[in-house]
Amino acid sequence: MKQYRVGIAGYGVVGRRRHQFINQNSLLNVVSVCDVTMAEGKLEREDVRVYTDYQKMIREEKLDILFVCLTNDVAAHATILGLINGCHVFCEKPPGRNLQEVSEVIKTEKLNPNLKLKYGFNHRYHDSVREALKIVKSGEYGKIINIRGVYGKSTIVSVENGWRANREIAGGGILLDQGIHMVDLIRLFAGEIDEIKSYVSNSYWNLEVEDNAFALMKSNSGVIIQFQSTATEWRHRFNLQINLEKGTLVLSGILSGSKSYGQETLTIFPQDIQSGGNPKTETVNYLEDNSWRDEINEFAKCVNENIPVQTGSSSDAYETLKLVYRIYFEDAEWRNKYNIKVE
Amino acid sequence: MKQYRVGIAGYGVVGRRRHQFINQNSLLNVVSVCDVTMAEGKLEREDVRVYTDYQKMIREEKLDILFVCLTNDVAAHATILGLINGCHVFCEKPPGRNLQEVSEVIKTEKLNPNLKLKYGFNHRYHDSVREALKIVKSGEYGKIINIRGVYGKSTIVSVENGWRANREIAGGGILLDQGIHMVDLIRLFAGEIDEIKSYVSNSYWNLEVEDNAFALMKSNSGVIIQFQSTATEWRHRFNLQINLEKGTLVLSGILSGSKSYGQETLTIFPQDIQSGGNPKTETVNYLEDNSWRDEINEFAKCVNENIPVQTGSSSDAYETLKLVYRIYFEDAEWRNKYNIKVE
Amino acid sequence: MKQYRVGIAGYGVVGRRRHQFINQNSLLNVVSVCDVTMAEGKLEREDVRVYTDYQKMIREEKLDILFVCLTNDVAAHATILGLINGCHVFCEKPPGRNLQEVSEVIKTEKLNPNLKLKYGFNHRYHDSVREALKIVKSGEYGKIINIRGVYGKSTIVSVENGWRANREIAGGGILLDQGIHMVDLIRLFAGEIDEIKSYVSNSYWNLEVEDNAFALMKSNSGVIIQFQSTATEWRHRFNLQINLEKGTLVLSGILSGSKSYGQETLTIFPQDIQSGGNPKTETVNYLEDNSWRDEINEFAKCVNENIPVQTGSSSDAYETLKLVYRIYFEDAEWRNKYNIKVE
Amino acid sequence: MKQYRVGIAGYGVVGRRRHQFINQNSLLNVVSVCDVTMAEGKLEREDVRVYTDYQKMIREEKLDILFVCLTNDVAAHATILGLINGCHVFCEKPPGRNLQEVSEVIKTEKLNPNLKLKYGFNHRYHDSVREALKIVKSGEYGKIINIRGVYGKSTIVSVENGWRANREIAGGGILLDQGIHMVDLIRLFAGEIDEIKSYVSNSYWNLEVEDNAFALMKSNSGVIIQFQSTATEWRHRFNLQINLEKGTLVLSGILSGSKSYGQETLTIFPQDIQSGGNPKTETVNYLEDNSWRDEINEFAKCVNENIPVQTGSSSDAYETLKLVYRIYFEDAEWRNKYNIKVE
Repeated sequence: MKQYRVGIAGYGVVGRRRHQFINQNSLLNVVSVCDVTMAEGKLEREDVRVYTDYQKMIREEKLDILFVCLTNDVAAHATILGLINGCHVFCEKPPGRNLQEVSEVIKTEKLNPNLKLKYGFNHRYHDSVREALKIVKSGEYGKIINIRGVYGKSTIVSVENGWRANREIAGGGILLDQGIHMVDLIRLFAGEIDEIKSYVSNSYWNLEVEDNAFALMKSNSGVIIQFQSTATEWRHRFNLQINLEKGTLVLSGILSGSKSYGQETLTIFPQDIQSGGNPKTETVNYLEDNSWRDEINEFAKCVNENIPVQTGSSSDAYETLKLVYRIYFEDAEWRNKYNIKVE
Repeated sequence: MKQYRVGIAGYGVVGRRRHQFINQNSLLNVVSVCDVTMAEGKLEREDVRVYTDYQKMIREEKLDILFVCLTNDVAAHATILGLINGCHVFCEKPPGRNLQEVSEVIKTEKLNPNLKLKYGFNHRYHDSVREALKIVKSGEYGKIINIRGVYGKSTIVSVENGWRANREIAGGGILLDQGIHMVDLIRLFAGEIDEIKSYVSNSYWNLEVEDNAFALMKSNSGVIIQFQSTATEWRHRFNLQINLEKGTLVLSGILSGSKSYGQETLTIFPQDIQSGGNPKTETVNYLEDNSWRDEINEFAKCVNENIPVQTGSSSDAYETLKLVYRIYFEDAEWRNKYNIKVE
Repeated sequence: MKQYRVGIAGYGVVGRRRHQFINQNSLLNVVSVCDVTMAEGKLEREDVRVYTDYQKMIREEKLDILFVCLTNDVAAHATILGLINGCHVFCEKPPGRNLQEVSEVIKTEKLNPNLKLKYGFNHRYHDSVREALKIVKSGEYGKIINIRGVYGKSTIVSVENGWRANREIAGGGILLDQGIHMVDLIRLFAGEIDEIKSYVSNSYWNLEVEDNAFALMKSNSGVIIQFQSTATEWRHRFNLQINLEKGTLVLSGILSGSKSYGQETLTIFPQDIQSGGNPKTETVNYLEDNSWRDEINEFAKCVNENIPVQTGSSSDAYETLKLVYRIYFEDAEWRNKYNIKVE
Repeated sequence: MKQYRVGIAGYGVVGRRRHQFINQNSLLNVVSVCDVTMAEGKLEREDVRVYTDYQKMIREEKLDILFVCLTNDVAAHATILGLINGCHVFCEKPPGRNLQEVSEVIKTEKLNPNLKLKYGFNHRYHDSVREALKIVKSGEYGKIINIRGVYGKSTIVSVENGWRANREIAGGGILLDQGIHMVDLIRLFAGEIDEIKSYVSNSYWNLEVEDNAFALMKSNSGVIIQFQSTATEWRHRFNLQINLEKGTLVLSGILSGSKSYGQETLTIFPQDIQSGGNPKTETVNYLEDNSWRDEINEFAKCVNENIPVQTGSSSDAYETLKLVYRIYFEDAEWRNKYNIKVE
């Protein structure tokens, strides 16, 4: 069986995690990784070359597939370079620091129609999310009326990720880094957004990037969405409540490496007026985070069978990033302070 | 000991409930009640006259104190009539259908400076709320950063309260009826509101009054508030999360006659970055709803000792109602459709 | 319509609570109450005579129905006296201090076959219990394998109930007073008990009556039961888990006047080996405690229509009390210390 | 730095997991593994020899340290062989199929006083357990009154572990395999056990080994313990409630590879009679299972610094296994059916 030669640009927590799941796919073979913090040579115990410069790796390794797990400032550049050098590319979110960067990527993508480009929005692959989407699509509970979502943690900067506070490198803060996942899910459930009212703030952590973003939105189809992305939520929280005409779905907790967002559950309660607001509830607890595995497998399949990318396409990535920027933009103070543009 | 002669105008669920708690206060003596649905005469087993017309009751009974538990359309009128006839008045929320009505009340109040006027915003008297306020004021957790609140139930109209769907009588829907309590608490914690962005809708129940109101607000002091008042929340819910600089307070559930909002709890979790977003939490479960008793006792004391009304003053009632109307107003479509005015 | 003349012997918390629910039944009319702590005369605002001596009340009032809400030491005596005087009798649990007393009651009952005798085991009337019983009987989840039950509170003695610590008056402690309800439910679900292993102790509160009872039991049909009745459970708790062959029912929390046992819920989770021990769960939250109302209504119906008592018959009361005594008896130390006998 | 040559006998799920954590300790170096299901040769990507026969591995490899992760039937034999061949030995629970086997191990251990022998009871190393033990020992809440424990899962046999249903190989069922951890914790908190009353059953799964064990026990110091080990608990459960004189500790959930036992929490609620059985509760959620790492590190330290084994000594392992066997023994039917002996 043919194996694709894979290179991983950026070998921090995420790059290493990707490596682990790439190894589980028999179509893929990691031949090289690169990271500015490593020494050139070989990975311990593995026959994998190590680079410090992703440009050098891309030029020298004749890769079939490039995984981009770099800092935000070079994500788009590396993606473009990969495409130019004939690589299928899988790039982590955010797809770039801003819309302009992603537009450039898409231009390059169009010039290479035989190459697959996929972005890592793994939340769509969580079992609780997939089940919720299936239920919504079934129509069993009617249409969505409104959505409330909170994604929060207690800080922006960690030891490994000090660069996240640097606007020049990161491009944005908690909304661009973590909240973008929920923005993506909001688009998944509510469709495209028509109106946005927002507040964006960095007044708590006093960094160059936002530590809180609040948005009140209305979708084209009339769904109202309340959303908060925050780095001042002292108890880690992932909560997405979808109110439909005949029932409610609550996604609470999400499996992650840290386990800090709590157990991943989907709770369903039907409209039942007779129950006095206390309908019988159903809860499923998901034990496995298969999102990383399934996302990579789907990408490998697209490459191998020449199938268009469905989830995490460049178009989806662009629209999700655009919604992030529209949230920035609608806070006039924030827009002016950081010269936010939405093409 | 002197007992004050009390009349209760409006003898539905709320009027009867007030009666029960008035009976527990030895300063107060209910001598008459009135309700359009009752027959004139005497209350069974009680030496209490029954009227069908509140105007007649107020004119004939030489009351010291009037409780106004009527429908919204006559609340302000009865309050004014009580004041004019020399009664101290306790009036349920909302203080009127709109700001104009309450302005008229306040004018009358000013002409009768010796009379006490208090409004029934009993949520401020719930033990969980009082404890939360005490903690916030202590400064232990620093200043408030932001607040998220949801108050929801599964319908607007019940058998007894069919009039709530009638705009002419009710003046407004779920926000004016139930959400106003949380609006009042938001003012209590965040202070006066500077900016408001909102959506107001009646598209689910298709009544003349709103079944959903969403607001994104900023207080004068910079606190951001996300708030939803809803009649399409299939599981009754009262949840108010107050994020402070060094910790979070969550008020979840609230004791009520129906028990349908769940146990009334206050959960505290401190900022503890080292905990990875899982700080030690403290939870208190409140078993007793003393709000009705305490609210009436405080009013009786104000009357008896000639003390100014602190909680639920006409000024507070006006400002809270005004915030409700500003939420209506800021949704341009709603404003135009129902000719909303905010003086 | 004929109304039955009702007397209530014992007018503490329970007697007064019964009065409230008797008033809701149009077949019943309370004409007298008695309590050693009251003054003779009339109840305020009610046309109800007050006695201090239940014997005098029974002799003088020509009652149709007697409610016995007295202390345990005179419960059986009053019941017998009621029957002898031609009253239908409703007696609170426990039916007496010991089996001998209840045997005497049953002898008297047999001499008056036209009179109804019912005991107050209201837990069987809670909606969560009724629903659980219905599910078990449906056979949907197969037979019961085992049961775990805990009923606990944080003290035996309260201000009103100081006599509960007096062995001469109370006959027993937490097991006889509170635990007897769960013993009754265990009989309801598991049937009669074959083997018992137990520990009974008063070592914490150092009163004459038990503050803890633990039982490990096997029913005739092979169901194993673990049960603890305790007055050293610092958080009030009612929890009864019924493990069946194909699923589990958990009764958690129970509605009571104090609300201190938490919300009354029934949670169901099916056997689902594929789920890795995390099957989809269903939860119902019960908002109303209709047990007191329904129990009295059923009794009134039995009296009025001359139907045999089904729930809370003297036979049931005897067997439940016997099981309590067998739990006492099987702890040899306790048996010897307090000369426990099980006929 | 000297590294100890480590061999792992038994390379299933547990053996591989140990390997992972041994690799994290710089004192230890895995040079060989063995498993009957593997092919001889080398581990992929690692310089580790693979055996199929543990006896051959022990004889040929000149190991310093042997990890025994074999099936129960050969655990004691391999341990003895390791000691005879001069290895320090770390052996998984259970230490053997029965007490006789462990007695033989201890005899061999005494002949090799320079060798360390440690058993894998990793639950003592969970952070929630350690914190609870610390609180108990602090005396803050007084002495332990009683303990309730349940450890349950939904089956005995899994694909990999079909041998667990084979009495000849496994020696026992759910109690010996999983319940033994909680038996060990019961000894940790309550001390040695004086009296035992029990039921042991295999009537659900109809295997040769028990699927349920119930024990009602009293410790030498008077603590009463209710304990159930079960393979018919349809929702995985780990719950250990420790009632002390002035408060209660609840250990609920426990981190494991499967995450199926829920989040690992320690909840504390103090005695607070005034609270009406609803004291303020404190909850800590533990995010990391450091038990495997810490257990191995402690063993490595004992070996390296010649310190006696404290946790998981052969004496502890023997006493814990003995308590398991006493629970078997006290059910007369079970004792006779399987000829249970307790020396």
